[in-house]
This record gives sequence, C-alpha cells and structure tokens, in this order.
Amino acid sequence: MNAAGPDRRDGETGRTRETAAPETPAHGTLAQRLIADHLVEGRAEPGEEIGLRVDQTLTQDATGTLVMQELEALGLDRVRTEVSVQYVDHNILQTDERNAEDHAFLRSAARRFGVWYSQPGNGVSHPTHMQRFGVPGKTLAGSDSHTCAAGSLGMLAIGVGGLEVALAMAGRPLYVRMPHVWGVRLTGELPPWVSAKDVILELLRRHGVKGGVNRILEYHGPGLASLTAMDRHVIANMGAELGATASVFPSDEAVRAFLRAEGREEDYTPLAAEDGAVYDLDEEIDLSSLQPLIARPSSPGDVVPVREVAGEPVGQAVIGSSANPGLRDFAVAAAMVRGRSTAHGVSFDVNPTSREILQDLTRSGGTFDLIGAGARLHQSGCLGCIGMGQAPAAGRNSLRTFPRNFRGRSGTEGDAVWLCSPETAAASALTGVITDPRDWAADTGCAPPRLELPERASVNTAMLEAPPAPDEAAAVELERGPNVSALPELDALPGTLEGPVLLKAGDNVSTDDISPAGARALPYRSNIPKLAEFTFTRIDPEYPGRGRETEGPHFVVGGDNYGQGSSREHAAITPRHLGLRAVIAKSFARIHWQNLANFGVLPLEFENGEDYERVGSGDTLRLEGLRKALGAEGTSLRVRNLTRDEEYPVRHSLSPRQREDVLAGGIIPALAARAPAPAE
Amino acid sequence: MNAAGPDRRDGETGRTRETAAPETPAHGTLAQRLIADHLVEGRAEPGEEIGLRVDQTLTQDATGTLVMQELEALGLDRVRTEVSVQYVDHNILQTDERNAEDHAFLRSAARRFGVWYSQPGNGVSHPTHMQRFGVPGKTLAGSDSHTCAAGSLGMLAIGVGGLEVALAMAGRPLYVRMPHVWGVRLTGELPPWVSAKDVILELLRRHGVKGGVNRILEYHGPGLASLTAMDRHVIANMGAELGATASVFPSDEAVRAFLRAEGREEDYTPLAAEDGAVYDLDEEIDLSSLQPLIARPSSPGDVVPVREVAGEPVGQAVIGSSANPGLRDFAVAAAMVRGRSTAHGVSFDVNPTSREILQDLTRSGGTFDLIGAGARLHQSGCLGCIGMGQAPAAGRNSLRTFPRNFRGRSGTEGDAVWLCSPETAAASALTGVITDPRDWAADTGCAPPRLELPERASVNTAMLEAPPAPDEAAAVELERGPNVSALPELDALPGTLEGPVLLKAGDNVSTDDISPAGARALPYRSNIPKLAEFTFTRIDPEYPGRGRETEGPHFVVGGDNYGQGSSREHAAITPRHLGLRAVIAKSFARIHWQNLANFGVLPLEFENGEDYERVGSGDTLRLEGLRKALGAEGTSLRVRNLTRDEEYPVRHSLSPRQREDVLAGGIIPALAARAPAPAE
Repeated sequence: MNAAGPDRRDGETGRTRETAAPETPAHGTLAQRLIADHLVEGRAEPGEEIGLRVDQTLTQDATGTLVMQELEALGLDRVRTEVSVQYVDHNILQTDERNAEDHAFLRSAARRFGVWYSQPGNGVSHPTHMQRFGVPGKTLAGSDSHTCAAGSLGMLAIGVGGLEVALAMAGRPLYVRMPHVWGVRLTGELPPWVSAKDVILELLRRHGVKGGVNRILEYHGPGLASLTAMDRHVIANMGAELGATASVFPSDEAVRAFLRAEGREEDYTPLAAEDGAVYDLDEEIDLSSLQPLIARPSSPGDVVPVREVAGEPVGQAVIGSSANPGLRDFAVAAAMVRGRSTAHGVSFDVNPTSREILQDLTRSGGTFDLIGAGARLHQSGCLGCIGMGQAPAAGRNSLRTFPRNFRGRSGTEGDAVWLCSPETAAASALTGVITDPRDWAADTGCAPPRLELPERASVNTAMLEAPPAPDEAAAVELERGPNVSALPELDALPGTLEGPVLLKAGDNVSTDDISPAGARALPYRSNIPKLAEFTFTRIDPEYPGRGRETEGPHFVVGGDNYGQGSSREHAAITPRHLGLRAVIAKSFARIHWQNLANFGVLPLEFENGEDYERVGSGDTLRLEGLRKALGAEGTSLRVRNLTRDEEYPVRHSLSPRQREDVLAGGIIPALAARAPAPAE
Repeated sequence: MNAAGPDRRDGETGRTRETAAPETPAHGTLAQRLIADHLVEGRAEPGEEIGLRVDQTLTQDATGTLVMQELEALGLDRVRTEVSVQYVDHNILQTDERNAEDHAFLRSAARRFGVWYSQPGNGVSHPTHMQRFGVPGKTLAGSDSHTCAAGSLGMLAIGVGGLEVALAMAGRPLYVRMPHVWGVRLTGELPPWVSAKDVILELLRRHGVKGGVNRILEYHGPGLASLTAMDRHVIANMGAELGATASVFPSDEAVRAFLRAEGREEDYTPLAAEDGAVYDLDEEIDLSSLQPLIARPSSPGDVVPVREVAGEPVGQAVIGSSANPGLRDFAVAAAMVRGRSTAHGVSFDVNPTSREILQDLTRSGGTFDLIGAGARLHQSGCLGCIGMGQAPAAGRNSLRTFPRNFRGRSGTEGDAVWLCSPETAAASALTGVITDPRDWAADTGCAPPRLELPERASVNTAMLEAPPAPDEAAAVELERGPNVSALPELDALPGTLEGPVLLKAGDNVSTDDISPAGARALPYRSNIPKLAEFTFTRIDPEYPGRGRETEGPHFVVGGDNYGQGSSREHAAITPRHLGLRAVIAKSFARIHWQNLANFGVLPLEFENGEDYERVGSGDTLRLEGLRKALGAEGTSLRVRNLTRDEEYPVRHSLSPRQREDVLAGGIIPALAARAPAPAE
C-alpha cells in the first residue's frame, strides 16, 4: 500500500509542525511497547507484517452474524480471548422480522461460543466496551472501523474485517503491517465552546482522510491533562477517518478517574511513552488556538471553521454516535438548550450512546432539559450514523456529531450531512442556521456550561449477558432464522485471470459505496446472495446484473484510497460472490485491502498511477502466471489490456501468508487446506 | 349496514346485563345532547343520516398528506374549524428521504391552510390532542380510527376518512348514521394490579370486535369516580376495537383536574347525562370484579384471563401507544421494574406517547428506573403500533399495550402479538413468560405502586407550531417533494358494471389487509400509484397485477365486518385506482364503508348472507341499471353472476347524498359537478 504523504499546510495554520520522513526510527513510544508486549510473529519495523496476540474482541450486529458463521466454519468450540463481546447496535429499528431473528441468532451464538452479549438498546459498542471492558495495556480487535476508539484507555485497538476477528477469537494472531508512529503533542487547553471533536476535525483539516494511513497516532504532551478519557475517545474514534491503523493515548490519572467512576479502578495500570521517546513523525496542536470546526458534505476531510459557513439553513441536528458518545457531549447540549426551544422546522435528534449514559444524563436533569427544548430522544444505538433511520430530506442540511458523512450513508441520496461538535449542533438547532457556538453565546449571553461529571456512573449491566460456563455453552443450539445464510463456497484463484472490467470507480470509494448499509440493505447482512444484489448500486445500479451475467471472473478498477470507511467484509464477499477476483487501484484503504485478501480477491496497485486513466470500463484484462508470481517473493505483475492491446505494470503488497490465502481462494479454504481437522 | 347483534354471554360472566333491542328510545343522554348541540342536518333518530358541525379536527401523517391534497383539490383558503391540528406520529423512522419530505410538505400545508403543526417526536395525536386542545362539549373529527379517545373529556369524537375530515376543515358538516346509545354503567373500584385497559378488554371479551357497531358507548355510574381522565382515554380509545361510532364520558371533576394539570382549567365545563336518562341498550361492569385480561393473537376480541395463558414464553414486551398513553401507564411499569432487571432475551420496549409525558416521567424518576431495568426507550410516537419498527421475530410472543394485533400489523408475517395492560406487560418482561401481575406481586412481595400524578404537568409546546395569521399563511408555498403525487382522477360510475371478482375475502378483513401500513408501504402513503402496488398483498400478492391487467371494472367480495380497523382512506383509493368499483360483503365496518362511498366505490351487502358462499373468485358479475337504481329511494339491487348463471339480491345503505357521490365517482367529482367554482 502507498503510505499517503501528509498534506503540508503549516503555512496555512501557523500551528503545526511535521517532520519529513523519519531519519531516526521511533523508539520508546507507548505504541511500540504495546506492540512489543503482544508480538508473536514478525519484526516490529515499519512496513513489516507482524502478528499480535489479541486479548479482547468486539463485534457488532452488522458484521457479527458473519463472524459467528465464520466461527462455525472454523469449528471453534469456545473463544480463546480474555474477553469477547457481541454488541447489537447497528440495526435496531426492526422494520420486519429479520432483525429480531438476527438478534436471536447472535444471542444464541454468543452463548454457544462463550461471548458476552449486549442486547439491542444497550448501547453503541465503542463507549459501552470502554465503560465495561476496556483495560489499559490490552489489545482489542473489532469488526468495526471505530474500534480504535479504545485507544483512549491506553489500549492497542484495531478495527479489522470480521474474519480476522473470528480468527483472533479462535486464538490466532492478528496480522497487520507495522505502522509508523506519529506523535501528536498537545499543548494548552481548549477554549470555551471548543471541544474534543474540534481537535480531531483539526487533524482532518490539516491532513485529510488519508493523513493517517499506515500510521499509529500517539497523543502526548501537557495538553492531555485537560482531556477526560471520554474526550480522548472522541479523538481516538475518528482516527479511523484519517485512515490510521490505531490511536493511542497514555493511561494516566484521567483514565484512572474514568475507571473509578465505572467501578473498575482495579483495572487501572499507568502507561506512557518513555521519557525522551522519539516518533517517526511529529505533530503539534496548541489546543488553546482551536476554534469550532465543521466538515462539509460529503467527506470528513473537508473541514472548515464553522464561521465560514455560518447562516446556512439547517433542517436537522443530531447528537450522538461513537464519535461524541460521552455524558458531557449530551450534557453540554442540554445545558445550552435548557429553557429554550429549538427552531421550528428543525428536527433535533438525540441518540444516547448507551443505557448507562442515558441514565446519568437523566439523573443530572439533562434528559428533561433536552426533551423540554424539543429534542426527539431515541433509543441507544448507532441509528442515523449507520443510515438506520433519521434520513434527512434531500438537499437539506443535516448537522451531526457523527464520524462520517459519505454521500448517501444517511439513507438519502443527495444528502447534505455536516460533521461537528455537540456545541455547534446545539447552537445550530436553536437558531435554525449553522452557528458558531461562540457567536450564539455572545448573542444570548449564555456562559460556558460548568459540567460536573458524576463521581460514580450509573453502571448498568441489565442487558449485558455473561456467557454461560463451557458445559452449558456446548449444549446451546444456534437459532438460525430463514434469513441467515451459510457462507458461500470460495474456490481457489486460477493461474490466469481473464475477464472484463465491470466497474471503474473514482477516488475514495467507500465500503458504503461497495456494499451499502441503510434500511434497505442492512437487514440482509446475514444473507450473502441477497445482499449481493446491492453491490456497487450506489455507483452503478447495473453492476450486480452484469456480474451475474458475466461468465468467469471480472475486474474492478479503482482510484486512490479504494475501500475507505466501514470495516464491513461484506464489501469483499458480495462482489466476490458476483465474480470479482481482482481489484486494480491507485491505492487501498487498509481494512478493505485486508478483507479482499481474506476472501480471495487479489488487490493490486498500479505502478504508474496514470495507467488508471488508460483502462476503460468494459475493457478485457488478462493476468497470467499468477500461481508462480504470487508464490515467489516478487511483488510485480503485468496486466494485459486485450481491448487496447496495452500492458500496465502493477504490484501487490501481500505478505507471504496473504499470498497463500489469496491463492487458496481466501483464508477459510487456506486453513482447510493446511489442516483438514477443525482449526486448532 | 348490519347492526351486529351483541354477543350475549351473561351466563358466562355473571357480571353483565344487557337489554334486548330497545323498547323505549334513548333520551336525556349526554351523547344525544352533544349531537343536538351540533346538529345541522337530519333527525337524530337511530339509523338516520345526520350532519354535524365540527369544532375541531385532527389528522396524522399517514392520512394527512392526502387530506392536504384534498384541501388543495377543494380550493380551500383557510380552515373554518375552531382548531385543526396536523400531527406527525405514525411514520417517524425516516429510513429514507421520503419521510422527511412528507414532513416538510405537511408543515408547509399546515401553515398554508391555518392548521396547527405537531412536529415528529412531539407525540401521538390522541393524548397530545387531549392535553393541548381537548374541550368538553366540542365535536372532533379525525382521520384516525382512535380519534374516539377524546370522548374521555366529554367530547363527541369520531374517526372518519381523510376526505370527510378535509370537508369538515372546509366548514362542511360531518355525516354519520345516528347510532344507538349504549349506556355502560360502572360500579365499584378496580382492584390492585387491574387497570383501565382491563375494562375495555372486558367489553371486548363480552362483545367481540363488532359489539359496538352503530353504537355510541356512554359511560356513567359511580365507578367513574375512581377513573382519571387518562384512564378514560384508554377505555374510549379502544371503543374503536368494538366498532363503535364514538365513546362518551361525562365531563366531571376528573376532567377538571386533568385540565387544571394541563394549565387549561378555563376550558372546563361540567357535562353529564340528565338524571333519569334512558339508553337504547344497557350494560353494567362492576370494576371490583375485574381481573387482568389479555387479547390473544391476532384479534382484539379474542380476550382471556391472563392466568389462562400464563407461562407462555415472551420475546418482547412493549409499553405505549394511544391505548395506554398516560403517565400512570408508564409510571406503574417503572415502579414495578425499579431495581430489577427484565429477563434476558426479552426486548422491553417503552414508547413514550408524548414529549410532555416523557418529561413528567423523567421528572418523577420513572425514566431512570425503566432504563435501569433494561428498557429500550424510544422516541415519542406510534412506532410498533403502526408497524414502524419493533417487529418481533415470527412466532415469538410479543405482549403490547397497543389497541390492535391484526396479523402482520407488527411488520412480521406470522407474528404472535398479544394486547394487555402495562401491569401485565411489565410483569411478563420481568419473568420472561406471560404473567398475571397479581401472581408476580405475590411472588416478589411487591406492593401495588402508589402513583401520585403531578398537580401540574410539564406542559411542553416546544414542537407545536401555531398557524400563521391569514396574510402570512396565504403566501406560504406548499413544499411538495417528488414522492407526493396528485390525487388520481375519479370518473363517474357507469350505468352497468360488469367484471370479474378479483378477490374473495373472508370475515373481519382489516384496512391493514387492504392497504398495509408498515415500513415497506407507509413511505408511499402520499403516492397513490406506488402505494396501489401493495393493495391486498397480505391476502393475495397477485391482486395488484390482476387489477392492472383487467380492462374495465372489477368486484371484490367480502365477509362480515369488511374493512375493520384503521381509518385510512388509502384502503378505498388504492383498489379504486386498480379498477375496483363495487364491494359486495356480508357487512361493513363503518369508516371504511364511508370511505368507499367517498371515493366512488359502491358498497353492497348480500340480502342473504349465504349467497356469499355461492360467489367464486374469478366469477364475472354484472350490475345493471345503476343510475336509475341509485337515483331512486330504493335500496335493493340484483347482481347477476354470469359465470354461474345466478342472481343474488343485494342492498345498499347509502343516503341520498352518498348515492349522488357514488354516481359522480366520489365526493370530489360530485362537489365539482355541483359547483364549478372552488368549494364555498
């Protein structure tokens, strides 16, 4: 993969400094210590594939039903991690019976395999995991791209595809490319009306959606002292939007205070980089210099100051999601709207992130104030953040505290979704136009709210179900409804691939574009043949039909950052089901690149980016000698365009292990080939 | 229409008494007084068509977009009622952009025509209307079958089709058949763990879903003293399930206390039947003899004691809807679950009915307790009650405090939905099996909760928008999204109808069967051609196709109580759009019968019920001389079955006004024919 070069905008901001490519390799960093503590394969040098021991896993319902099917396919009896948790937070509208069937399947599978089960409505996985299970120093693999949020507690937390989580649950290592460690030094304190969301939006403003590719962000410096653990969650969460492998914060007094409030102080361990630690790259943010920021439609990287777009009419403002999950994020909005009314014609939606946070908010009076001001208070879960409900009218501005605003992800084609802090969302809901909260405060005379977080949170485990003991678990039957399919068969890669380019995509194609979520598609997440009918339909409604009609394999050609966004492996499985066997792109987003290899789709990059322009949709391509080429250590191949009678050099970045997997047709057939008996 | 005879089960229960057909006509009743006060046409004698002046109207979003299109078609400038309110409560999941577009259209139309607008999330229409607008002695017409709930305040409140509401908004009378007045005398007090829901379930147990047809239920007697206004709402609301035209309670101290708590004591007027009032029929319920009851799947009339079905496993329990909307209904559940946890594997859903009630519940601590015990707290609205979300898994028991449980209405074919009180739902959520709350209380030692209702409610008008002044209103442009169609053209009834029977339905076909709501269909409620594709698909997926393919008109044959349930006029318009011009049934439910006539579909009844058996699906029927037959005063016709060479006598119950409407093709073309200029 290409490590995307950082955008250098120092001159623009006057506040940042970034070194050029590292001269002294990083040492003494916390990220490296966490990796060293869990290294079971490989050498921890940038670019090398390493295998890590996984202490904890999390899965959610949109990816989890496949993970459970994969555990079945692997013949697992009981998970080998310290803690594995299945959350149900993505698809909880239950517009038909499939949803409740999936929940029953997940619950039975969680009980069968020794996994905790968090019922629908219990909360969004990331903050709930942090509250109940996060432990400094541990590794966490999750089949959700925002798994990285747990870096807020000094964990090494990585979002990967479902199959990789399934393998980790089975006790196998998690393989990643050793990233560069990017030190982000924080100084100063945030001014009033500016909050953690503005910190990560500032990083996105500086570096865009590829700024973190092949990097771990490690936050350090005196500015940390004023950020709570949940503030750090906001920042770590949206490391995913920078494309980073992980985000790491030290485990310090803020983490101790958080764990104490959760009744788990005994899980605290102090962790920090060594004195004099050196990073591969350096960044600095003076918190006191930040201002309210907002990402314009439809990219988290298109960030501008709120004042630059102030006055635009607003049809909806939504508070919630894993990108602003903490009690303070709701409490600050509640304090702002207390005794006021949101503007007529604005839908002010509040999505509590967990039952615990809603209880704390209720106890503090915030729930009462929000409802009083006109909020629609929804059940705890991802909701509009994953396109399950809350779809805005086309073209009407919707301000959200969510992490993503890819076109159509809201459920509305032609949407206009902006990303901002709770302060900006609340001020804008009150005025009916995009509003810098500082200007609203000046107009209304509202003082910055003084928010006291409770010493002890309303710890709530009512809907969190511990797995039964092994004997009882072994007797649990999987409750498989008619909408839960089996995994499709995966055949080996042929020695020669010849077929048409069935789709040519542009830059920054997201996994939402490849395999949409939302209310139409998400109910079929456990049913691959049915879900495949939605593949790429955002970009080209005819793609599934062409895939079905084409005999033999086909190609997809992509631009830069192909497969950004959600970790869903459906984006690899469903086009594979339709015949896709190779994607040739300018560059790939990390998780999707892994998912392609895991499911036997060959991910190739153009050696010369300009060759991308030469390939046309419908051209017939041919790749020869694949078994030999992938068997050897070389990384170069040539793809022949039979339609234009041209050749393009391409390369892969697959590790030897991944090459074997791709040749076998994917990890599952590869494991079957290596060990005919059930795994481990 | 047939007045369905009451089921006489006196011997079964030992607690009821009902007179035979009335010998002395009713006099001195409150229902008659309310009618007399608003009579503008006809004589108030049972069976006669009367025209009533309408003081207030309510519309909701599922029916309201058509009403607004009808106001346009009528050329209305500004409503002529005292108060008209447009609620948005049915379809508020917003799974795509159509939903938000509809809301924008409704808001603009409300502003244009001088109508109050209650934003999505503000609350379910019936309790919200009662809280903010209900006034004793007034008439209310609503395009929702549960409009009758407002009878709790001493109003005459009638659910009708949307077009009739549109006409009432335009200042025209509301036409109904003068019903019999059915006096229900209440004595005694409810025992612990038995509540208002059990009172109306007892009436349904005694009389079934047709027991109230062509009747107004008028409650009186000493038992009223212990029922709050909101308890009466529960009872009045589900008068719709008995098929009653309306339910009327006196306006007494309980109503005064309610209005005082709402800050509107000045709207109070005492109202009661005269001393010595005589009813057409009499019923008595000794409240102290009641026990917890439950309606089995899939009819509100299939009621049994909870103990008779105790122990059945429960997958879901839901509290909310207009059938249990009051603060006490949530507070009692909150008190029961306080400090406890609902059973694992049970989804315990709480649907607050309005923002005000949620604020009161939050203020009292009930919200905190419910969440603590594992509740999924949803936004305020109808939600699962109208099949928008909360769909259960097929075959898993779902206990709901809702008014209806018709098969599939939950969004799940093969559902198993039971109707019960909040006490029964909460006890069952805690145990995981159907549980009589008295037995749960005995097992746990839980004392009956002492619930103090607040002296003053959290009156909340944040999301209730008053209509602008006429000048400003006249300038409002309707915001019509691409999913808001125009009304279809309606041509006159031909003199001879000949065509096939495209569907033969059984007894108790509901408007949910004819035009389904739910997450797939409801988004198209404003788009008749698209919505028509769902017509009758519950019963026969091929019906829309056959309708489109059949040249000329067709017939539908129905059994008893054809068109029960929701008031939605889509159930008349969409089959009409597909070619339906006459329904021949054993008997009709009132609102749908009116809707058919309003949209130019001839509703006919078999003179001899057994002829229903002789007609087959696919038979070709012929009706001749319709213009003459409907023009005259006679009510009899003969339908010829060309396939079987038989004739059946049929009759209609149309008033002269309705006959004109049907001949013209519906009310809108009839009005256009009478007055070429815009109405009024």
